[in-house]
Amino acid sequence: MSNNDLELLREKLDDVNLELLHLINKRAELVQQIGQVKEKQGINRYDPVRERKMLDSIEDHNQGPLDPASLKHIFKEIFKMGLGLQEENQKKALLV
Amino acid sequence: MSNNDLELLREKLDDVNLELLHLINKRAELVQQIGQVKEKQGINRYDPVRERKMLDSIEDHNQGPLDPASLKHIFKEIFKMGLGLQEENQKKALLV
Repeated sequence: MSNNDLELLREKLDDVNLELLHLINKRAELVQQIGQVKEKQGINRYDPVRERKMLDSIEDHNQGPLDPASLKHIFKEIFKMGLGLQEENQKKALLV
Repeated sequence: MSNNDLELLREKLDDVNLELLHLINKRAELVQQIGQVKEKQGINRYDPVRERKMLDSIEDHNQGPLDPASLKHIFKEIFKMGLGLQEENQKKALLV
């Protein structure tokens, strides 16, 4: 493999980074919408059973190369961010 | 919004989770390939300048709702996982 191949792989990686960026933000938008519905219904935003189910589904569908423990770690970080955003929105709503 | 809407939003979220799973693994595969090229060329796998550039590009393309600091955090976790996988592969190669 030459330097050109390295460049090509890096370009592909940059594309994947931007696709991930788009999806992580899209996920955050959905979590915001779910938070709004839950708030109206007076349901607690954090739902550990639902989180467990999502992690199980991710593990079931995993074809690698990443191992389940690494994926669980990264998805828990992504979940936390979504919840953080919901809380932020609620605080903003309380201040207005 | 009714419970049906909540279900619909959750289905969308599940789809996005699986798309993320696919992309995170695809990214890991690319990082593995890049690691192999670098190893052959005797280049250090960890490249802080390249990491900085990737984070800058992600920030430049961000349209929200997530803020740059949260995204930086999550992408650094994703980067770390890629590097961890490269090291694991190298260890395996050394053992054989």
